[in-house]
Amino acid sequence: MVTVGIVGGTGYTGVELLRILARHPQARISAITSRKEAGIAVAELFPSLRGSVDLRFSDPATTDLGKCDLVFFATPTGVAMEQTPGLLQKGVRIIDLAADFRLKDVAAWQKWYGMSHSCPQLLEEAVYGLPELNRERIRRARVVGNPGCYATAVQLGFLPLIEAGLADAGHLIADAKSGVSGAGRKAEVHILFSEAADNFKAYGMSGHRHSSEILEGLAQAGGKAIGLTFVPHLTPMIRGIHATLYARLTQDADVQQGYEKRFRDEPFVDVMPPGNTPDTRSVRGANQCRIALHRPGNGDTVVVLAVIDNLVKGAAGQAVQNMNIMFDLPETQGLEALALLP
Amino acid sequence: MVTVGIVGGTGYTGVELLRILARHPQARISAITSRKEAGIAVAELFPSLRGSVDLRFSDPATTDLGKCDLVFFATPTGVAMEQTPGLLQKGVRIIDLAADFRLKDVAAWQKWYGMSHSCPQLLEEAVYGLPELNRERIRRARVVGNPGCYATAVQLGFLPLIEAGLADAGHLIADAKSGVSGAGRKAEVHILFSEAADNFKAYGMSGHRHSSEILEGLAQAGGKAIGLTFVPHLTPMIRGIHATLYARLTQDADVQQGYEKRFRDEPFVDVMPPGNTPDTRSVRGANQCRIALHRPGNGDTVVVLAVIDNLVKGAAGQAVQNMNIMFDLPETQGLEALALLP
Amino acid sequence: MVTVGIVGGTGYTGVELLRILARHPQARISAITSRKEAGIAVAELFPSLRGSVDLRFSDPATTDLGKCDLVFFATPTGVAMEQTPGLLQKGVRIIDLAADFRLKDVAAWQKWYGMSHSCPQLLEEAVYGLPELNRERIRRARVVGNPGCYATAVQLGFLPLIEAGLADAGHLIADAKSGVSGAGRKAEVHILFSEAADNFKAYGMSGHRHSSEILEGLAQAGGKAIGLTFVPHLTPMIRGIHATLYARLTQDADVQQGYEKRFRDEPFVDVMPPGNTPDTRSVRGANQCRIALHRPGNGDTVVVLAVIDNLVKGAAGQAVQNMNIMFDLPETQGLEALALLP
Amino acid sequence: MVTVGIVGGTGYTGVELLRILARHPQARISAITSRKEAGIAVAELFPSLRGSVDLRFSDPATTDLGKCDLVFFATPTGVAMEQTPGLLQKGVRIIDLAADFRLKDVAAWQKWYGMSHSCPQLLEEAVYGLPELNRERIRRARVVGNPGCYATAVQLGFLPLIEAGLADAGHLIADAKSGVSGAGRKAEVHILFSEAADNFKAYGMSGHRHSSEILEGLAQAGGKAIGLTFVPHLTPMIRGIHATLYARLTQDADVQQGYEKRFRDEPFVDVMPPGNTPDTRSVRGANQCRIALHRPGNGDTVVVLAVIDNLVKGAAGQAVQNMNIMFDLPETQGLEALALLP
Repeated sequence: MVTVGIVGGTGYTGVELLRILARHPQARISAITSRKEAGIAVAELFPSLRGSVDLRFSDPATTDLGKCDLVFFATPTGVAMEQTPGLLQKGVRIIDLAADFRLKDVAAWQKWYGMSHSCPQLLEEAVYGLPELNRERIRRARVVGNPGCYATAVQLGFLPLIEAGLADAGHLIADAKSGVSGAGRKAEVHILFSEAADNFKAYGMSGHRHSSEILEGLAQAGGKAIGLTFVPHLTPMIRGIHATLYARLTQDADVQQGYEKRFRDEPFVDVMPPGNTPDTRSVRGANQCRIALHRPGNGDTVVVLAVIDNLVKGAAGQAVQNMNIMFDLPETQGLEALALLP
Repeated sequence: MVTVGIVGGTGYTGVELLRILARHPQARISAITSRKEAGIAVAELFPSLRGSVDLRFSDPATTDLGKCDLVFFATPTGVAMEQTPGLLQKGVRIIDLAADFRLKDVAAWQKWYGMSHSCPQLLEEAVYGLPELNRERIRRARVVGNPGCYATAVQLGFLPLIEAGLADAGHLIADAKSGVSGAGRKAEVHILFSEAADNFKAYGMSGHRHSSEILEGLAQAGGKAIGLTFVPHLTPMIRGIHATLYARLTQDADVQQGYEKRFRDEPFVDVMPPGNTPDTRSVRGANQCRIALHRPGNGDTVVVLAVIDNLVKGAAGQAVQNMNIMFDLPETQGLEALALLP
Repeated sequence: MVTVGIVGGTGYTGVELLRILARHPQARISAITSRKEAGIAVAELFPSLRGSVDLRFSDPATTDLGKCDLVFFATPTGVAMEQTPGLLQKGVRIIDLAADFRLKDVAAWQKWYGMSHSCPQLLEEAVYGLPELNRERIRRARVVGNPGCYATAVQLGFLPLIEAGLADAGHLIADAKSGVSGAGRKAEVHILFSEAADNFKAYGMSGHRHSSEILEGLAQAGGKAIGLTFVPHLTPMIRGIHATLYARLTQDADVQQGYEKRFRDEPFVDVMPPGNTPDTRSVRGANQCRIALHRPGNGDTVVVLAVIDNLVKGAAGQAVQNMNIMFDLPETQGLEALALLP
Repeated sequence: MVTVGIVGGTGYTGVELLRILARHPQARISAITSRKEAGIAVAELFPSLRGSVDLRFSDPATTDLGKCDLVFFATPTGVAMEQTPGLLQKGVRIIDLAADFRLKDVAAWQKWYGMSHSCPQLLEEAVYGLPELNRERIRRARVVGNPGCYATAVQLGFLPLIEAGLADAGHLIADAKSGVSGAGRKAEVHILFSEAADNFKAYGMSGHRHSSEILEGLAQAGGKAIGLTFVPHLTPMIRGIHATLYARLTQDADVQQGYEKRFRDEPFVDVMPPGNTPDTRSVRGANQCRIALHRPGNGDTVVVLAVIDNLVKGAAGQAVQNMNIMFDLPETQGLEALALLP
């Protein structure tokens, strides 16, 4: 039984962690903290958990997380790095769902996140929590930086192509579409229902933070620097990311077969048969990435379609997958739920 | 282990049965039939089931369901009544998710459904599958008529009031709102996205079939005839029913306490504390009915708010709950999944 | 040509006023103020107006509205009452889209709005701007209190019944459903896309402010006090109100004919033929109320279905209708646009 | 006054034509035909037109369209080409909203549309109705092939770049997202609300018919053959197309200035200032294309964002714009309505 704590559980990744962990046979949630909601019953904020999660949010200032085996940070970027060193000293392992431990390059991190990193030495040690890329290192990690949602879909979609060196890695294009929950549970006008419903738009054209993770991850995978044009879009749905990826082949290859082989043993990556296109709803609520491959007109441009649920394989589900790996539990435990369709 | 068959699994109640049963530890799906899709892999029609359901739809004409312990009918009304007598002879038990076995009154059935009933004698034997009303009779039933989605929400919402005789049962009002999946997976113009999205309307003003079940169920509960104005509305969401129920109290009473007491031991009915209002999303994907009670201005009008997921507690989930009861399994088995929120 | 000013134009009623007035042949917008957005081009905040509205938001402190013929207040309740006396002295007429001038009863106003009214003497003079009820008084009014969106739909729906004294006015029920734009363009969590989409819920069970207007308006129409159970619901659509109204007839009557006769000369109220049910989308973007009447099972309960666009007939469109009346323009001028369907 | 007939007015382009033409000061609709709905009042099918369109659908077999000045075909592809020669002989001019007259290349047409063309000689004469490309030829045309919705957005987005020869025209990428109304008002399962809502997917990967128009239009504009990877996606909104276009610059250039200059005099194309991203809702209901330009990281990849309302600038609005041009009316007449936002 793994004793877990959750720091900052009032956002969507927090409630999603609770949904999954409340039914995980080997996890016990000992505490969930929130400065703002301290004292409030979790089920009062999230009635979907009534009868299943009896905890109250506790004050982070007075909550001792030192006895946890594992602490998840579901906080804004910048919080986990402050508390991680102290928890590590008490033997607690860390999975951060924000961006504090996603990059190796300190300078890049500080540029993208606009703050200085309080424990840069841990960036070196921390493991980027994409199991399909770093499974063995995650197993032994003390600190895991759980990938961003866009970054998960884009990296899984490009990975086999880049690892095999089949594409022009200097001119990749990722046209990505996200459901609105990817923007979090913050009171902001642009994600109001009346702003985001029945509407579609691109955003973040001057550079999205997730591109930095993607560049590092794919450079690691391919052994050389990557060039990427990344355009995220806001889509009027709650959950889901659809990445449409474009790459120019530098040699002829059976791309379908390459992907199938690469992901054959991955429990949470599904390469669809030729001719399919994945719906985001086919992974709604499930810890799953579904991929399909196309070469329109048999030309040199490969189109990769990759879908995930941004809150599951793109956040809380992947975090629990990492927990399972770190604590030698079956990797799929607690993550067997099928997608909700329709 | 219960061996089950599913007749007609290409609609939304069918895929929802599959989603639940594929993860049920004591159920084994031996066959799923579809005239139209015979030979097609289930996972091809419903990619959300890829990797979890390996069956193909089989031709009902050549599929022997006689070895099943239980057959679910997820067919249009009129199919189950044709096949049920033959299956009963082979010792198979039946749960019909359509309306073939929901009423006792043959004449009423024939009027509402516009056809003659092929085995009226079974109407007498069949048990109306609302566990909160008929649990013990369900346990022994050979044939269960699984309630309609509206009928489940409206009956659970009115039940304690009617059983206790506290309200004017001759003038009940049920203003009910349903997600579009309640209309099924049929190619019809009025439920197209571009017709039903960003729109709200009432329908069925000349009489909705579910009102006949409600009248029978509540008359059974209250011991006398019921008068009901039932107005269903189509709401631009996929899943969910919200019933707003109005009744005039005939005596003063602590309604909140009455409901809490009535449903105290019900695993799938949650009476919320005073002052709350239930969201349909708080039960999305979950086999749960959530109820809240209000008396605006402390007047004599009670307002009951009851929500369910029309495909779960309003259809497939309730059917599995009935299966669990019929086969002496723990009633909540396979139905523990928490609601997907957001 | 009417010279108009708009105070507080950054919300949804503000942008809707701009959309309508920018195409009104007899209106000229001379200024639009916003404390927060002063200096910003209107079209920067609302790109839908690019090329059509060249104004910038101006600072209310330095904007002289005294030369306007008419000022619309699209501000939160409490602002218009502060500025109205000064503007009246300069000969400016006022239409307030908030609630400052909607009630006659000062005590009731102060109770519902939780503040003291700064010019209670004007409540007496101000005219409640429902043209179908008060057209002639609007024509001569200096101050018009534009009705709330729920209040417009509920009053128009009940009006003929109450005026004719045909129903039990002590036990009216209004089950009303609103699109999310009715909650305004404020940064609040409960109206985020990921909270309000694919969800349905009741709210305001302890009393909604609009009920006070409805009670006053219908009491005026019927000549006696009204009893009303009013339950508002939040619906996952942007625009639209659907009021489902229930009343018990106290005598037999041809309700359909009564409504048709009552609204025969109203340009913006459409009584549908028997058997219809109105969609909210049939009035999307249009200054129109559409009504249908039903008597289920020919019983004594009348069900009135009334739909409006909350931002048009429920706010900005009705305000322009009032402007047309006040300035002796054709009542439909600038309001001829047809509903956007689909 | 232009006397117009509409053939096949029961789909979304038909009702949109009616919405626009009913308010057009110089158009008179003399007949609207529908085989299936003959005899039915238009306003019965589309209640949004109640009180404004008094026509009934008439039987195409008995309706004489020979006295019309102009006939719009809002029919499936293959109908207009049968009737056009006969109407031309009577002096009627034609705007076809389907694909019958969109291509010059007969062989390509027959390949893409899977039928043989019944009047291939007219393909030569017919003018492709993109005013920004062919205004003068439209003015004199007897037959106009109104562009497809995707084709309008993609061509307007690429046009200045291709005309100026600034980009690698052999490797264009168009990642396009459409609202569901683009699929028409047909009873098909994949566009049901419960299938298309809260979901996102690519489709048509084996080749979309609109790509043939785009290739012809851009080849005409650039004077040489084009290579295009076109991936359309279905988005859970009713109206709107968002085209995200990628091109590799072959020389340095001020792209922003080039677009502004190219479209300076176009009444219905708006090039936004640098740094903006267009929302589809900013053109909802309006005959407008809004474009923004980006060069991420100042690299050699240009990203063009182009939005239209698929039913207006992508269909009925553009058809009326063509009508205005053909009949020497002011080009913007009847098309001044501003976008509905929110």
